[in-house]
Amino acid sequence: MATSSFKDRENCNEGSRFPLDELLGQLCFNEAGLLPVIAQQHDTGEVLMLAWMNREAIHKTLESGMVTYWSRSRQCYWTKGLTSGNLQHLIEMKFDCDGDAILCFVDQKGPACHTNRNNCFYYSVDPKNSSVILRSEGFSAK
Amino acid sequence: MATSSFKDRENCNEGSRFPLDELLGQLCFNEAGLLPVIAQQHDTGEVLMLAWMNREAIHKTLESGMVTYWSRSRQCYWTKGLTSGNLQHLIEMKFDCDGDAILCFVDQKGPACHTNRNNCFYYSVDPKNSSVILRSEGFSAK
Repeated sequence: MATSSFKDRENCNEGSRFPLDELLGQLCFNEAGLLPVIAQQHDTGEVLMLAWMNREAIHKTLESGMVTYWSRSRQCYWTKGLTSGNLQHLIEMKFDCDGDAILCFVDQKGPACHTNRNNCFYYSVDPKNSSVILRSEGFSAK
Repeated sequence: MATSSFKDRENCNEGSRFPLDELLGQLCFNEAGLLPVIAQQHDTGEVLMLAWMNREAIHKTLESGMVTYWSRSRQCYWTKGLTSGNLQHLIEMKFDCDGDAILCFVDQKGPACHTNRNNCFYYSVDPKNSSVILRSEGFSAK
Protein backbone atom coordinates (compact mmCIF):
# COMPACT_ATOMS: atom_id res chain seq x y z
CA MET A 1 0.00 0.00 0.00
CA ALA A 2 1.32 3.40 -0.88
CA THR A 3 2.04 5.68 2.03
CA SER A 4 -0.30 8.61 2.42
CA SER A 5 0.95 12.17 2.16
CA PHE A 6 0.35 15.15 4.43
CA LYS A 7 -2.29 16.32 1.95
CA ASP A 8 -4.06 12.93 2.06
CA ARG A 9 -4.30 13.01 5.86
CA GLU A 10 -6.07 16.36 6.07
CA ASN A 11 -9.53 14.87 6.24
CA CYS A 12 -8.70 12.15 8.74
CA ASN A 13 -10.53 12.19 12.04
CA GLU A 14 -9.28 13.52 15.32
CA GLY A 15 -7.40 10.74 17.11
CA SER A 16 -6.23 9.00 13.91
CA ARG A 17 -2.80 7.37 14.23
CA PHE A 18 -0.02 7.24 11.63
CA PRO A 19 3.45 5.64 11.65
CA LEU A 20 6.07 8.11 12.88
CA ASP A 21 8.65 6.93 10.33
CA GLU A 22 6.21 7.60 7.51
CA LEU A 23 5.65 11.20 8.57
CA LEU A 24 9.33 11.80 9.29
CA GLY A 25 10.08 10.68 5.75
CA GLN A 26 7.63 13.20 4.32
CA LEU A 27 8.68 16.33 6.24
CA CYS A 28 9.60 19.17 3.89
CA PHE A 29 13.12 20.05 4.97
CA ASN A 30 14.63 23.08 3.27
CA GLU A 31 17.60 22.92 0.92
CA ALA A 32 19.92 22.79 3.95
CA GLY A 33 17.96 19.85 5.38
CA LEU A 34 16.38 21.95 8.12
CA LEU A 35 12.93 22.79 9.49
CA PRO A 36 12.03 25.79 11.67
CA VAL A 37 11.08 24.83 15.23
CA ILE A 38 9.05 26.96 17.63
CA ALA A 39 9.67 26.36 21.34
CA GLN A 40 6.67 27.24 23.50
CA GLN A 41 6.61 26.98 27.29
CA HIS A 42 3.96 24.32 27.93
CA ASP A 43 2.24 25.90 30.95
CA THR A 44 2.44 29.65 30.36
CA GLY A 45 2.16 29.60 26.55
CA GLU A 46 5.16 31.92 26.19
CA VAL A 47 6.87 31.53 22.82
CA LEU A 48 10.52 31.24 23.82
CA MET A 49 12.53 31.02 20.62
CA LEU A 50 12.72 29.80 17.05
CA ALA A 51 15.55 27.50 15.99
CA TRP A 52 16.19 24.70 13.47
CA MET A 53 16.26 20.91 13.40
CA ASN A 54 17.42 18.45 10.80
CA ARG A 55 16.11 14.88 10.75
CA GLU A 56 18.77 13.63 13.15
CA ALA A 57 18.07 16.47 15.61
CA ILE A 58 14.41 15.41 15.64
CA HIS A 59 15.49 11.85 16.48
CA LYS A 60 17.89 13.04 19.19
CA THR A 61 15.16 15.20 20.72
CA LEU A 62 12.58 12.40 20.73
CA GLU A 63 15.04 9.81 22.09
CA SER A 64 16.56 11.97 24.82
CA GLY A 65 13.62 14.17 25.76
CA MET A 66 16.05 17.12 25.67
CA VAL A 67 15.37 19.57 22.85
CA THR A 68 18.29 19.41 20.41
CA TYR A 69 18.66 21.80 17.50
CA TRP A 70 21.05 22.12 14.59
CA SER A 71 23.09 25.28 15.06
CA ARG A 72 23.36 27.03 11.69
CA SER A 73 26.11 29.36 12.92
CA ARG A 74 28.24 26.62 14.51
CA GLN A 75 27.18 23.82 12.13
CA CYS A 76 26.76 21.29 14.92
CA TYR A 77 24.07 19.72 17.11
CA TRP A 78 23.07 21.90 20.00
CA THR A 79 21.29 20.38 22.97
CA LYS A 80 19.75 23.49 24.42
CA GLY A 81 21.20 24.29 27.83
CA LEU A 82 23.87 21.58 27.83
CA THR A 83 26.55 24.13 28.64
CA SER A 84 24.44 26.85 30.32
CA GLY A 85 22.29 24.48 32.35
CA ASN A 86 19.16 26.11 30.91
CA LEU A 87 17.81 22.85 29.53
CA GLN A 88 14.66 22.50 27.48
CA HIS A 89 12.73 19.37 28.40
CA LEU A 90 10.43 18.17 25.66
CA ILE A 91 6.76 17.86 26.63
CA GLU A 92 5.25 17.36 23.17
CA MET A 93 6.39 17.69 19.56
CA LYS A 94 3.89 18.61 16.85
CA PHE A 95 4.19 18.86 13.06
CA ASP A 96 2.07 21.26 11.03
CA CYS A 97 -0.42 20.56 8.24
CA ASP A 98 2.18 20.81 5.45
CA GLY A 99 5.02 19.08 7.30
CA ASP A 100 7.25 22.12 7.03
CA ALA A 101 7.29 23.44 10.60
CA ILE A 102 7.54 22.01 14.12
CA LEU A 103 6.07 23.21 17.40
CA CYS A 104 7.62 21.90 20.62
CA PHE A 105 5.88 22.32 23.95
CA VAL A 106 8.78 22.46 26.39
CA ASP A 107 9.62 22.94 30.01
CA GLN A 108 12.38 25.53 29.94
CA LYS A 109 14.75 25.67 32.89
CA GLY A 110 16.03 29.21 33.39
CA PRO A 111 16.09 31.80 30.59
CA ALA A 112 15.73 30.56 27.00
CA CYS A 113 17.63 33.44 25.39
CA HIS A 114 21.43 33.69 25.28
CA THR A 115 20.98 37.25 26.64
CA ASN A 116 19.49 35.75 29.83
CA ARG A 117 16.04 37.03 28.94
CA ASN A 118 13.18 34.58 29.31
CA ASN A 119 12.46 34.61 25.59
CA CYS A 120 14.20 35.77 22.42
CA PHE A 121 11.40 38.00 21.07
CA TYR A 122 12.13 41.21 22.92
CA TYR A 123 12.04 43.85 20.14
CA SER A 124 8.50 45.16 19.92
CA VAL A 125 7.61 47.20 16.85
CA ASP A 126 5.81 50.50 17.45
CA PRO A 127 4.69 51.35 13.90
CA LYS A 128 2.97 54.63 14.86
CA ASN A 129 6.29 56.05 16.04
CA SER A 130 8.45 54.23 13.48
CA SER A 131 10.42 52.74 16.30
CA VAL A 132 11.15 49.52 18.12
CA ILE A 133 11.01 49.17 21.89
CA LEU A 134 13.06 46.71 23.90
CA ARG A 135 10.33 44.85 25.76
CA SER A 136 11.00 41.31 26.88
CA GLU A 137 7.68 40.47 28.46
CA GLY A 138 6.08 37.63 26.53
CA PHE A 139 2.66 36.03 26.58
CA SER A 140 1.85 34.44 29.89
CA ALA A 141 -1.26 32.61 31.02
CA LYS A 142 -0.22 33.01 34.65
CA MET B 1 27.38 57.77 13.95
CA ALA B 2 27.38 54.14 12.86
CA THR B 3 24.17 52.25 13.38
CA SER B 4 24.20 49.66 16.12
CA SER B 5 23.69 45.99 15.36
CA PHE B 6 21.42 43.43 16.99
CA LYS B 7 24.47 42.22 18.94
CA ASP B 8 25.24 45.74 20.19
CA ARG B 9 21.69 46.19 21.51
CA GLU B 10 21.67 43.11 23.70
CA ASN B 11 22.71 44.95 26.84
CA CYS B 12 20.36 47.90 26.40
CA ASN B 13 17.78 48.48 29.08
CA GLU B 14 14.16 47.49 29.02
CA GLY B 15 12.18 50.28 27.36
CA SER B 16 15.02 51.46 25.11
CA ARG B 17 13.86 52.76 21.72
CA PHE B 18 15.50 52.27 18.32
CA PRO B 19 14.59 53.49 14.82
CA LEU B 20 12.39 50.96 13.03
CA ASP B 21 14.15 51.51 9.70
CA GLU B 22 17.51 50.73 11.29
CA LEU B 23 16.31 47.36 12.61
CA LEU B 24 14.46 46.51 9.41
CA GLY B 25 17.69 47.07 7.53
CA GLN B 26 19.53 44.63 9.78
CA LEU B 27 17.09 41.71 9.77
CA CYS B 28 18.75 38.49 8.61
CA PHE B 29 16.58 37.43 5.70
CA ASN B 30 17.45 34.06 4.18
CA GLU B 31 18.79 33.60 0.65
CA ALA B 32 15.22 33.92 -0.68
CA GLY B 33 14.76 37.20 1.19
CA LEU B 34 12.41 35.66 3.76
CA LEU B 35 12.08 35.36 7.54
CA PRO B 36 9.99 32.78 9.43
CA VAL B 37 6.99 34.31 11.20
CA ILE B 38 5.11 32.74 14.12
CA ALA B 39 1.45 33.77 14.51
CA GLN B 40 0.22 33.50 18.10
CA GLN B 41 -3.33 34.26 19.20
CA HIS B 42 -2.89 37.23 21.53
CA ASP B 43 -5.38 36.26 24.25
CA THR B 44 -5.25 32.45 24.40
CA GLY B 45 -1.55 32.02 23.57
CA GLU B 46 -2.33 29.39 20.93
CA VAL B 47 0.38 29.14 18.28
CA LEU B 48 -1.64 29.20 15.08
CA MET B 49 0.83 28.78 12.22
CA LEU B 50 4.27 29.49 10.85
CA ALA B 51 4.64 31.33 7.56
CA TRP B 52 7.12 33.68 5.85
CA MET B 53 7.55 37.40 5.26
CA ASN B 54 9.92 39.36 3.08
CA ARG B 55 10.70 42.99 3.80
CA GLU B 56 7.75 44.29 1.81
CA ALA B 57 5.35 41.88 3.57
CA ILE B 58 6.54 43.30 6.90
CA HIS B 59 5.77 46.82 5.64
CA LYS B 60 2.37 45.77 4.29
CA THR B 61 1.51 44.13 7.62
CA LEU B 62 2.55 47.14 9.68
CA GLU B 63 0.79 49.62 7.39
CA SER B 64 -2.48 47.73 7.02
CA GLY B 65 -2.71 45.99 10.39
CA MET B 66 -3.64 42.82 8.46
CA VAL B 67 -1.00 40.10 8.62
CA THR B 68 0.44 39.62 5.14
CA TYR B 69 2.85 36.84 4.27
CA TRP B 70 4.85 35.89 1.21
CA SER B 71 3.49 32.63 -0.15
CA ARG B 72 6.42 30.43 -1.15
CA SER B 73 4.20 28.03 -3.08
CA ARG B 74 2.31 30.72 -5.01
CA GLN B 75 5.16 33.27 -5.08
CA CYS B 76 2.91 36.18 -4.21
CA TYR B 77 1.80 38.32 -1.26
CA TRP B 78 -0.85 36.63 0.82
CA THR B 79 -2.98 38.72 3.15
CA LYS B 80 -4.20 35.99 5.46
CA GLY B 81 -7.96 35.52 5.17
CA LEU B 82 -8.49 37.92 2.28
CA THR B 83 -10.32 35.23 0.30
CA SER B 84 -11.55 33.00 3.17
CA GLY B 85 -12.59 35.83 5.46
CA ASN B 86 -10.46 34.34 8.23
CA LEU B 87 -8.42 37.50 8.67
CA GLN B 88 -5.48 37.90 11.03
CA HIS B 89 -5.47 41.30 12.69
CA LEU B 90 -2.04 42.35 13.93
CA ILE B 91 -1.84 43.14 17.63
CA GLU B 92 1.95 43.32 18.01
CA MET B 93 5.00 42.40 15.94
CA LYS B 94 8.23 41.38 17.65
CA PHE B 95 11.73 40.58 16.32
CA ASP B 96 14.05 38.15 18.07
CA CYS B 97 17.51 38.70 19.53
CA ASP B 98 19.34 37.83 16.31
CA GLY B 99 16.92 39.50 13.91
CA ASP B 100 16.19 36.25 12.13
CA ALA B 101 12.66 35.42 13.29
CA ILE B 102 9.39 37.29 13.87
CA LEU B 103 6.59 36.70 16.36
CA CYS B 104 3.20 38.27 15.65
CA PHE B 105 0.53 38.47 18.30
CA VAL B 106 -2.67 38.38 16.28
CA ASP B 107 -6.41 38.31 16.59
CA GLN B 108 -7.44 35.47 14.30
CA LYS B 109 -10.96 35.50 12.92
CA GLY B 110 -12.16 31.94 12.33
CA PRO B 111 -9.80 29.01 11.80
CA ALA B 112 -6.16 29.77 10.95
CA CYS B 113 -5.49 26.54 9.08
CA HIS B 114 -6.54 25.87 5.47
CA THR B 115 -8.06 22.60 6.78
CA ASN B 116 -10.49 24.67 8.90
CA ARG B 117 -8.74 23.62 12.09
CA ASN B 118 -7.98 26.37 14.58
CA ASN B 119 -4.24 25.92 14.20
CA CYS B 120 -1.87 24.16 11.80
CA PHE B 121 0.03 22.07 14.36
CA TYR B 122 -2.28 19.07 14.63
CA TYR B 123 0.14 16.12 14.27
CA SER B 124 1.26 15.15 17.76
CA VAL B 125 4.25 12.80 18.01
CA ASP B 126 3.89 9.82 20.34
CA PRO B 127 7.50 8.60 20.49
CA LYS B 128 6.80 5.68 22.84
CA ASN B 129 4.53 4.12 20.23
CA SER B 130 6.50 5.35 17.20
CA SER B 131 3.36 6.99 15.94
CA VAL B 132 1.75 10.36 15.33
CA ILE B 133 -1.76 11.22 16.49
CA LEU B 134 -4.02 13.72 14.80
CA ARG B 135 -4.77 16.05 17.67
CA SER B 136 -5.68 19.62 16.87
CA GLU B 137 -6.11 21.02 20.36
CA GLY B 138 -3.51 23.73 20.91
CA PHE B 139 -2.37 25.65 23.96
CA SER B 140 -5.10 27.74 25.47
CA ALA B 141 -5.04 30.01 28.47
CA LYS B 142 -8.83 30.03 28.57
